[in-house]
Amino acid sequence: MLKDRPRQEAYYNAILRNRELFKDKIVLDVGAGTGILSAFCANAGARLVYAIEASNLAAIAVELIHDNNLTSIVKVIKCKVEEFELPTNAEKVDIIVSEWMGFYLLHEGMLDSVLFARDKFLKPDGLMFPTECTIFVAPCSLPSLFDYYSNVDGVKMDKFARKLRLQKSTRPEITQLKPNDLLHEGVVFHWMNLMDVSVDELAEIQFKEVVAIQKAGKHQGFCIWFDVLFPGDDSVVLSTSPLSPETHWKQCVVVLPEDSCENLEEKSPIAFQINMKRNPNDVRKYNLEVELLDANLEEHPVPCPCHMTKCILTEAHLKMMDT
Amino acid sequence: MLKDRPRQEAYYNAILRNRELFKDKIVLDVGAGTGILSAFCANAGARLVYAIEASNLAAIAVELIHDNNLTSIVKVIKCKVEEFELPTNAEKVDIIVSEWMGFYLLHEGMLDSVLFARDKFLKPDGLMFPTECTIFVAPCSLPSLFDYYSNVDGVKMDKFARKLRLQKSTRPEITQLKPNDLLHEGVVFHWMNLMDVSVDELAEIQFKEVVAIQKAGKHQGFCIWFDVLFPGDDSVVLSTSPLSPETHWKQCVVVLPEDSCENLEEKSPIAFQINMKRNPNDVRKYNLEVELLDANLEEHPVPCPCHMTKCILTEAHLKMMDT
Repeated sequence: MLKDRPRQEAYYNAILRNRELFKDKIVLDVGAGTGILSAFCANAGARLVYAIEASNLAAIAVELIHDNNLTSIVKVIKCKVEEFELPTNAEKVDIIVSEWMGFYLLHEGMLDSVLFARDKFLKPDGLMFPTECTIFVAPCSLPSLFDYYSNVDGVKMDKFARKLRLQKSTRPEITQLKPNDLLHEGVVFHWMNLMDVSVDELAEIQFKEVVAIQKAGKHQGFCIWFDVLFPGDDSVVLSTSPLSPETHWKQCVVVLPEDSCENLEEKSPIAFQINMKRNPNDVRKYNLEVELLDANLEEHPVPCPCHMTKCILTEAHLKMMDT
Repeated sequence: MLKDRPRQEAYYNAILRNRELFKDKIVLDVGAGTGILSAFCANAGARLVYAIEASNLAAIAVELIHDNNLTSIVKVIKCKVEEFELPTNAEKVDIIVSEWMGFYLLHEGMLDSVLFARDKFLKPDGLMFPTECTIFVAPCSLPSLFDYYSNVDGVKMDKFARKLRLQKSTRPEITQLKPNDLLHEGVVFHWMNLMDVSVDELAEIQFKEVVAIQKAGKHQGFCIWFDVLFPGDDSVVLSTSPLSPETHWKQCVVVLPEDSCENLEEKSPIAFQINMKRNPNDVRKYNLEVELLDANLEEHPVPCPCHMTKCILTEAHLKMMDT
């Protein structure tokens, strides 16, 4: 993940371009790994950094901190953050830094530990790096899973493709989409302020929406991605959108099992419901379910840019009221 | 693998551009998978194709052949080729087609089954698609494993990188190199004619060589790749070289555990030995060992373009003899 340049650069810029926030501050790095983010914080002027790492990477972090002459600032502690205690009479921390994000933000991530650390160790006016997260969803085309197989070098492979999709539709796929595959810029499916979100709120996330597609195309799946925002005047966004440079998170794609041969025109409404729920057997994992709904039966947002008569009429009515 | 375009295109061109070889012929497709190569052969004019597939993909192949109206030509048979029998009194086959290649050609490949099929089912003047294979090896630089970590956004990570390499050096890595990473165009480490190679010859492959690098650079590993050649006037080569478009085989890289900080100059000799041996616990797998030797102690080829005095003198001597 050290090779994931957008990730590296986001943390580097968020920390090193906001030195005034780190100057003489106490930082807690949750899940410090090799210790590189702790080194960034020390380089940005932090007075003291607790680098908490439970795995054997802690030994590597110790060496890295030593080799970068930062032992007087960064204290590497090999333990889970849940088992960590501040030294007696020590101040709480000014900043929590962590790279905890998993696939589609929460899957196999470690936000719970970060929130635990926030509640126990962060000063009331402290800062979280990152501080806000947004999950987006957009209907998309998946030409490589659908259209490609209708003619592979002169051979029809439609039935094979259908089986492949049926298999893929049973579990979300981590893959990088092309910007052109999106039928919509994406709607916010969940937003979190890390300063006040609670673990309870992470148990289940539900979302229901009617989206009017902004580009004609075949609706063959849903694309889910996230952005995280860092604090500071020079605030940095790490985006995993198909429009941003590829990261190791890529995007999460939910494939529709059915052939969608119909080319939907611009402004066609797509109604759907997403449910993201902790896996009862492994709380670090999430089960993700997307259900297509009937756009005729669902309530549309007001105003709705879709091409259904009721929405066109509503829009016209609203315009008239305006004038 | 159907998405691996260089692979697909090589088989497509090898078969469809050499229709005269397939016209009215009997073909055996060993490990037919979805049946796409069998369909190519039928489209190229084959009279009869036996598509042998042991896995459940056989059911998909049946559908694919049906949907492409090829049932009168392609017979899908769900079994191992070792259990296959030709119909009573049936002719042997004119051509064997198979995509059997594994990583660095032999690892997890299924050449044994193809050779079994050749010995049992191919006419004496039959053809193999592909018909020849070459494995290459070249010393290479691995900047992303070595140089990158000397300064990651202002942080020295050399010790971490050394541990990473030590770990990676214990098992070959499948990865795509950049053409610029090669220090040499590659030497042939093994060549096989599929018309006459025997399974016994595949038990162990040994190779010892002194290579004079053709480009100055840091020697940080060895890169192994293969090419396969198809028969025909319009003979097609499927190459997995770093100079060719990326395939799913990529290349096999053996990482040197030690830091190599020294920039070798052009014509520096690199002596090494490779041993590729079947894994006794799983004959489809190979163990790969590369040993660096002392170029001062090893015998160099004659002539040798390296910059060592004895080789410069030999070359001068040979030139004099010529005149």
